[in-house]
Amino acid sequence: MNVLGIDVGAGAVKFAVFSKDGLRSFMGEEPTARTYPAFQAQLLDICGRLEKSHGIAAVGVGVPGFISLAERVIERSPNMRFLDGMALERDLAAALALPLAVDNDANAAALGEFLSLDEPRPACFVHLTLGSGIGSGIVLSGRIFHGSDGFAAELGHLLVNSQGRPCGCGNSGCAETESSETGIVRSYQEFACAPDPLSSRDVFARWQAGDEAAREAFRRAGTFLGVLLSQIVYALNPGRISIGGGVAAAGEALLAPAREELARRVVAKAAAGTRIEAARLGNGAGMAGAAALARQQPS
Amino acid sequence: MNVLGIDVGAGAVKFAVFSKDGLRSFMGEEPTARTYPAFQAQLLDICGRLEKSHGIAAVGVGVPGFISLAERVIERSPNMRFLDGMALERDLAAALALPLAVDNDANAAALGEFLSLDEPRPACFVHLTLGSGIGSGIVLSGRIFHGSDGFAAELGHLLVNSQGRPCGCGNSGCAETESSETGIVRSYQEFACAPDPLSSRDVFARWQAGDEAAREAFRRAGTFLGVLLSQIVYALNPGRISIGGGVAAAGEALLAPAREELARRVVAKAAAGTRIEAARLGNGAGMAGAAALARQQPS
Repeated sequence: MNVLGIDVGAGAVKFAVFSKDGLRSFMGEEPTARTYPAFQAQLLDICGRLEKSHGIAAVGVGVPGFISLAERVIERSPNMRFLDGMALERDLAAALALPLAVDNDANAAALGEFLSLDEPRPACFVHLTLGSGIGSGIVLSGRIFHGSDGFAAELGHLLVNSQGRPCGCGNSGCAETESSETGIVRSYQEFACAPDPLSSRDVFARWQAGDEAAREAFRRAGTFLGVLLSQIVYALNPGRISIGGGVAAAGEALLAPAREELARRVVAKAAAGTRIEAARLGNGAGMAGAAALARQQPS
Repeated sequence: MNVLGIDVGAGAVKFAVFSKDGLRSFMGEEPTARTYPAFQAQLLDICGRLEKSHGIAAVGVGVPGFISLAERVIERSPNMRFLDGMALERDLAAALALPLAVDNDANAAALGEFLSLDEPRPACFVHLTLGSGIGSGIVLSGRIFHGSDGFAAELGHLLVNSQGRPCGCGNSGCAETESSETGIVRSYQEFACAPDPLSSRDVFARWQAGDEAAREAFRRAGTFLGVLLSQIVYALNPGRISIGGGVAAAGEALLAPAREELARRVVAKAAAGTRIEAARLGNGAGMAGAAALARQQPS
């Protein structure tokens, strides 16, 4: 049975058809619509096209935002405000003759990464996406962990620095103020006394060219990532934590100081059981996870 | 069917027989033996006596220490060093003709508190014991959550203060350096410039008498408890967090600033789903949870 996995971002909607053995057989990408009615129509159109061309039997959608478990409503989507308060799952299901699952995009990505692991897979798995913020998902016994209301796994908002920067959540010192793309750029600008706009990719290029401020920026982001990892290990003792997203492209420039800080902070026995690894699927994790959600639906 | 719940502490072993409907029908307490062979003999003796007198059908034991899931070995028990490296469950089972379960004491207490709640019970539940340190347990879908290796739910070691005090774990700024009995006494001594030894009970008595330094000490402990609660809510989105242990006797002196800080730190919708409450069972939680573990064993 073929299923469709759709990964919604503020900028683009990405989608792929997955065959029964998990292989990806088609992929498309288009700019995300700007209003709720247009967005619904866009998703339905994608489903309709691929149902015809690929005979899909179910659809999974990963979407940014806090989705309540009980009402299946997107309570808040900071980067796609037209989704606030919308019952996307119900609205799509009303117009779609296929089984459908909608979940948070970071949760879907976590499930996708989890399923990319060789068996036996860990009983507890955490995936972090270091992008403009930090997305995260927790997979327990092979299923996304939602907490009591659907708002669990906001690990990017765990405290890493009591004297830290203000965060979009209204708090300060959250992990995503330090170890996200935004955090790295901010650190570079501070270390280099260079207020010009640039991307974390630019900072990484400068790191590769031997720039000292860039080195410091990645070391700082990695060290605070290690603080976050220590919190995750103490709370959840996961068998594996995978690190993806744009920032993760920096590889060991980021992961080496993170592992160092983790080892410094956590009792050896507890830390030993947690492998810290770069994510495997890159941008494809969200689509793979959404497809897996589709497959978990009763048909 | 009657089951026996045993709660092991460094100072005392407490035990009770629970009938099928969960009612506690007998309770005893004796000083904890000081060597591993004597301790084993003590537990077997308790089991033997109560098997005769109360016809118990299974035994559960809560014991302080990190217990590995795979090998069922107590990796480390900071306050009962003779347990380090011991396979207590295997050793007891070899001499006992009854089904037996051994788990961490804080996990057992969490399960006991969970089962004291009215139905429907939350899908995700967290219990904190504020004693000389901070013990904690996570109950998911009615069962203790152990993580991948058995070391999950060390929530007392989550970071609450980057500029904080050194912790017994080798780290600094952990929640238990601030919101445990030890933390409160330390804060009081700082605020009152009074280095004399005293207990958190003394500090609470001074708070009741209107002592300003005592008020500050509880406010500080409560505020940092709120930081810890915000970490727990962001990670796990539990339906309920119960707060027990000696410090919790201070009630709202502690919980009011904790709730305030939690509300300040966490997005309203996520915080709204988590009830913060004083624990119900007090010292009995560990025994009740151990008995529940016994009941979960196949007979």
